[in-house]
Amino acid sequence: MGEPIAQVRAPMVFNRLFAEAGLDARMVAFQVGPEHLKMALDGLYHLANLDGLIVTVPHKIAILPLLAELAPMAARSGAVNIIKRRPQGGWIGEMVDGLGFAEGLRSAGHDVAGRRVLIVGAGGAGVAIAFALALHGCGEISVYDVDRRRAAALVDRLQADGRAATIAASPDPAGFPVAINATPVGMKPDDPLPFDVTRVDAGALVAEVIMKPRETRLIELARAQGNPTVLGERMLDYQAPFVLDFFGIRRH
Amino acid sequence: MGEPIAQVRAPMVFNRLFAEAGLDARMVAFQVGPEHLKMALDGLYHLANLDGLIVTVPHKIAILPLLAELAPMAARSGAVNIIKRRPQGGWIGEMVDGLGFAEGLRSAGHDVAGRRVLIVGAGGAGVAIAFALALHGCGEISVYDVDRRRAAALVDRLQADGRAATIAASPDPAGFPVAINATPVGMKPDDPLPFDVTRVDAGALVAEVIMKPRETRLIELARAQGNPTVLGERMLDYQAPFVLDFFGIRRH
Repeated sequence: MGEPIAQVRAPMVFNRLFAEAGLDARMVAFQVGPEHLKMALDGLYHLANLDGLIVTVPHKIAILPLLAELAPMAARSGAVNIIKRRPQGGWIGEMVDGLGFAEGLRSAGHDVAGRRVLIVGAGGAGVAIAFALALHGCGEISVYDVDRRRAAALVDRLQADGRAATIAASPDPAGFPVAINATPVGMKPDDPLPFDVTRVDAGALVAEVIMKPRETRLIELARAQGNPTVLGERMLDYQAPFVLDFFGIRRH
Repeated sequence: MGEPIAQVRAPMVFNRLFAEAGLDARMVAFQVGPEHLKMALDGLYHLANLDGLIVTVPHKIAILPLLAELAPMAARSGAVNIIKRRPQGGWIGEMVDGLGFAEGLRSAGHDVAGRRVLIVGAGGAGVAIAFALALHGCGEISVYDVDRRRAAALVDRLQADGRAATIAASPDPAGFPVAINATPVGMKPDDPLPFDVTRVDAGALVAEVIMKPRETRLIELARAQGNPTVLGERMLDYQAPFVLDFFGIRRH
């Protein structure tokens, strides 16, 4: 559920998994604008065979007041990307974007343990990634956002959770072994770069949350200058186990 | 959209048609109980990529007050089985069950023109079938329902539309060249027969609306005694062109 939805890959990924698991289940995209979120969610609650929803832009934070309960990563992050019906009524939400992102890095051979991380963008994705990388034992997290209050809010949250975090005065990636774009900047062909890729340290990892285009200009330029890169699609591909767990789906 | 939904065949039929037509469209079953119909429909209205719904038991009549407009067969029948969003807002509903049923008979070589018809069951399906067979020029329609007021209401409606119609005092099929079960009686293994099949005239057509089981006991017994029969699945298979037309889908 999101808007726009033309770019979403989740139905393809999960319908393949459902088929492999022999499940009589189907994921379809629901286009819902921000002004209709409450009405749509109230209505969807009454589809008795709907187990739950994957929630995407622009609802990941706006949906919070409509939920009855937050699971651990959602409570930490202040954002959700999956919700399901509770046996006792109401929705419970969890946030597994960050877990998928961190697992995508780990499984590609990139260990973040002890390494300083720059996260550009403190929206739903940035927040989730920050908490998941912290769980994976990363070093100090620096957060940049064009909305400085948003960056400050994330840093406050991380510090309250006992994590080392600072606000970055600029999106300059110099000096960071890991630099992450967690903004939507790069989805459109004429978007600027989210940060100056020529300032990335030699050998530093450049990671992306954008899934469409599959390879953003940031990724292309980073790779061209010899930096290791991780595509946004890994965040989705590697969150599937967490989503299936949340919905109580056992895989073969 | 209905309850129960385990028996529905429409998603299989239409997803195959969508695939054949190369459409990026998908039909999924929505289980909605009668007490949740309004909430669910209000919510579904806000899924911007939902073109419309096929409406089934128990909502075909109950949904009427929630619609902004009725298309011609729905207005005649007082029931709908498909709805779509109007450009100017609200839902418009149409009823093509009967058109599919009548086309299913015609394409199987059964011409109803001028022939008397017994319809057992004056619910959504019975009403729709009565008006569609009337359009195909059938003879007098006799209507039986355990709820006599429901039978009377359908007969009144048919007469108001200029059709020859009477209330049947019993579901006795004797003397009718066409006898139709338009009740759900026969879905469960231990259901009684909707009418006494041994009383059907030699050579008379016995037709069914039930799709699951594919062959009801009524159909089996009628066939065993040599009567021509038409299965309930034809009603769905042959309404597909009317549904696609309603949604403005052009087929190759």
